[in-house]
Amino acid sequence: MSQSPGRKQENHKISRELFVLTYGALVAQLCKDYEKDEDVNTCLDRMGYSIGVRLIDDFLARSAVKKCRSYSETADMIAQVAFKMYLGVTPTVSCRSAVGNEFSLILDKNPLVDFVEELPAERASLCYCNLLCGVIRGALEMVHLAAEVTFLQDRLKGDAVTEIGITFLRRPEDRKHKR
Amino acid sequence: MSQSPGRKQENHKISRELFVLTYGALVAQLCKDYEKDEDVNTCLDRMGYSIGVRLIDDFLARSAVKKCRSYSETADMIAQVAFKMYLGVTPTVSCRSAVGNEFSLILDKNPLVDFVEELPAERASLCYCNLLCGVIRGALEMVHLAAEVTFLQDRLKGDAVTEIGITFLRRPEDRKHKR
Repeated sequence: MSQSPGRKQENHKISRELFVLTYGALVAQLCKDYEKDEDVNTCLDRMGYSIGVRLIDDFLARSAVKKCRSYSETADMIAQVAFKMYLGVTPTVSCRSAVGNEFSLILDKNPLVDFVEELPAERASLCYCNLLCGVIRGALEMVHLAAEVTFLQDRLKGDAVTEIGITFLRRPEDRKHKR
Repeated sequence: MSQSPGRKQENHKISRELFVLTYGALVAQLCKDYEKDEDVNTCLDRMGYSIGVRLIDDFLARSAVKKCRSYSETADMIAQVAFKMYLGVTPTVSCRSAVGNEFSLILDKNPLVDFVEELPAERASLCYCNLLCGVIRGALEMVHLAAEVTFLQDRLKGDAVTEIGITFLRRPEDRKHKR
């Protein structure tokens, strides 16, 4: 008989590999469930949204970040704090529009596809990591920021990098107030 | 426009919460797919097995542990190194048989159910974390150890602790050689 050597204080850090493989099992299951890639993508985005809606509280509590004053600050926060915390990587951020509401998160290496070599030919339209888009969209919505989040490039599809596009949507009432 | 402040070296550590919520989405999807709890449990175990078969290489490479010389050492290794590495917790190990091939991993707190309050009444037979049993079984098989791995107690079902039972199976050829 043996016992663990004293109870250590619980921490929140884990190895990424179990997560990456579990995510792979989830995508594989959805590919069994849905014939069309678009349906899998939609389902992943929807699941991600539900996750983001719940994850934002954990993020705000543990990161202790201050309120962002611009879309640019928000995009930096997602890349440098949230991605680092939840996926262990820091994407590069770039602004894609003069208006300042469109940003790209660029990943040289996408940790979620560590164990994926390439998409099968019959799954060419699959956005394998679409859950991430949903997570970002859901989390942003909980801090009253509406956004469209989609993959613009994907190394799994032969692109040089993986690029997630975030477009912050100005709401009609915002526009009215600013005039 | 902004950029991440220099490329930091990649690390393998991530926050557990995204994993826990993603796992929840996987279980919820399987509950949609299969009416019977037993089928969900079997599916989770099978998925876990495939994960364990792949995860063992990562574990051996990163933990740099030596070969275990007894079932007891193996059980300790799973609890103190593998659980700590992949889930951030260290279960207590106890031996359940005089023969020394049955062990329990006892979790006061199961990190995988952080966001789960209780199982719905119609899912009373669901082994929510059954993926873990499959992972352990698959990983052990890759180091030539056959084992049965099942939940013996589950706090989600009202038990005081969560207990995973591991029974190492002696193979006929082992017995012959040892006589």
